[in-house]
Order: sequence, then structure tokens, then C-alpha cells
Amino acid sequence: MDCRQIEKELKKILKPKRWRHTIGVEYTSVCLAMRYGEDLEKAALAGVLHDCAKYLSGEELLAICRENHLPVSEAEERSPFLLHGRVGAFFAREKYGISDEDILGAITWHTTGRPGMTLLEKIVFTADYIEPGRNEAPDLDRLRQLSFTDLDKAVVEILKQTLDYLTETGKEIDPQTELTYNSYKNNL
Amino acid sequence: MDCRQIEKELKKILKPKRWRHTIGVEYTSVCLAMRYGEDLEKAALAGVLHDCAKYLSGEELLAICRENHLPVSEAEERSPFLLHGRVGAFFAREKYGISDEDILGAITWHTTGRPGMTLLEKIVFTADYIEPGRNEAPDLDRLRQLSFTDLDKAVVEILKQTLDYLTETGKEIDPQTELTYNSYKNNL
Repeated sequence: MDCRQIEKELKKILKPKRWRHTIGVEYTSVCLAMRYGEDLEKAALAGVLHDCAKYLSGEELLAICRENHLPVSEAEERSPFLLHGRVGAFFAREKYGISDEDILGAITWHTTGRPGMTLLEKIVFTADYIEPGRNEAPDLDRLRQLSFTDLDKAVVEILKQTLDYLTETGKEIDPQTELTYNSYKNNL
Repeated sequence: MDCRQIEKELKKILKPKRWRHTIGVEYTSVCLAMRYGEDLEKAALAGVLHDCAKYLSGEELLAICRENHLPVSEAEERSPFLLHGRVGAFFAREKYGISDEDILGAITWHTTGRPGMTLLEKIVFTADYIEPGRNEAPDLDRLRQLSFTDLDKAVVEILKQTLDYLTETGKEIDPQTELTYNSYKNNL
């Protein structure tokens, strides 16, 4: 499926607020791709599909992983919404016909990142945090500017803000986020 | 009207291809605003409205200018489609309730630019040329990257490419475009 067809399909499935976020991430990914020389079509596809499984409940995400032999960590067992990236990449391949491994990786890792991210993975990870509809993060004006001037620094700041937020609110920390942060923190 | 309402109204009026271009300019304007520290909401409004009068014929544009005492130059008399920016700004004020002069300026000058453009005017002028749906311009990858690293240089390159294209194809050159180019060409 091409990007326009995928948009139409997702508009039927996602709630209006998540649909708006999805389009925000799609276009922000494309603009970051302009800035850093990534393929615009790949950025658009990864951006539009990043939350394509987020309409499912935790139970449903777990069930899909079990049925399809996708790995589930202990943290994901406790907080199965963490699985929406992995299941999203599975849907991207099975329902939307995406075979490009870089796009599938960008969907899989968009929430936690991973050590050794590709440029496309960094772009979607960052776009998810800074897209125009977001307003939760502290210091967002500076972080948005940083995202377009030094992507690696922006990635570490987002990881740090995410870990700080999860710690302060007592929410489940995906160990993958810590792993990613530790591998990138020297970029700060 | 807020940006979401304006999108809905314009989706009814504009053809699908121009609608897609409109959304591309809206989001590209917002991302340039992130990069250069402009207000995101103003960038979104100016971007989404920039072509809000482009569905009209040249005759209709001329008639609206005459009825409402909007200025019409000799070049615009000969090629009235050049008026879609001025009439767009008029619609933005009258139909969509926009009173911010900077937004109205960005709509008015989005095709030709003008000497002494504001940051918002430069952003919408540039977004119109580089948005993801465009593929006509030469060397677009480099120009897109330049737009996110040096906006002033990008503005001059776009003006130069536009004048070269109009000269090569024998199309009407709006003297305003030449005026803008001459005032900015030392930035190259």
C-alpha cells in the first residue's frame, strides 16, 4: 500500500486525536528527513504507521504476540502497551505490505529507541516526541529547534526526559529505554 | 476559526491535489517554525490558508479585487492568477477571521516574496516550494536541506530558480518577484 492508502485505512481505525498525532508524526518525520538527507517516502511510511497498533488493548497486543511468536519481555508482560511498536511493525508487514527492514525497525523502536539506531529510527523516535500536537514535554521550543540542528543530541534529551518522567510518576520503565539512554548519553 | 475548522472548510473547496499540497505547506511551515523559533500556530494558519483563493479563475480573482478595492498591477491585469495571494489574504480576514497582519502578509506574499520579509513570510514562501508533494524543482534534496539550515539562502535560491524557470518557459514574470530577488540576491 502507498502512503495515501495507508492514511485512509488508519483514519477509519484510529480515534481522531491519535489520527491527528499520526499525521503530525508523518510530516515531522518527512521534514526531519529533508533536514538530514533521509528518503522522504520511507520517513512518511514509518511515521504514518508508527502507532498503527496502538488502538489495541494490552490484552489484545499480548494475544497477537503469542499467536505470532513475537518476543515478549518481562516488562512487556507487566505493561503490555509497551508492545504496540513491535505489533505495529508486524501489522506494517502483514496488513500494509511493508518489507523495508529500516521502516519496520523505525516502527518497532519508536518508543524506546535502541543502541545503534539508524537515521530513520532516530527520525521517527524524535518526531513522535516533538510533532506539533504535543505540548506535554518541558522546554519543547528548545527541543524542537535542537531536533532540526543536532538530531543525536535531541535523541538523548528525549531519552533523558522520558526516563525522568517515568521515574517521577512511578510508571513502568522499559529496560530498553535505559539501555538506549546508556548507549547514547555520552552524546550530550 | 481555528486551524482544524479551516482545514475542514478548505477540504470541501479545494481539489484533492491542492488539498494535499495545502496540508504539505501547513506542516512544512510548522516544522520550519520549529527550526527558526516562529510561533507554530501562526505558521500552521498561514500555511493552511496560503492557497485558499487558488480555486478561483483569473476572472473571478479580478472581479473580487475590483469589488473590494484591492490593488491590481499591470502584470496582474495580464495574468490575474498572480492575484491569488492577495485575494487569499482578503478571504483569510473576511471568511476565516484572521486579523494577525503577519499571517495575512505571509499569505499575500507567498508566491513573489517582497523586500524586507518577516520570518513568517520567509517560512511560508519556502514551504510552498519544498513541501513533500513537490517534485518539479531541480536539486530539490539540497534545497530542502538548505531550507532547514539557512533560510535566507534558501529564499534567494528559490527566487532565482523561479525567475530562471519563468524566463525559460516564457511565462509572465511578476515584477514583484524581481524586486524581491534584487533585494535579497546578496545573501547568496
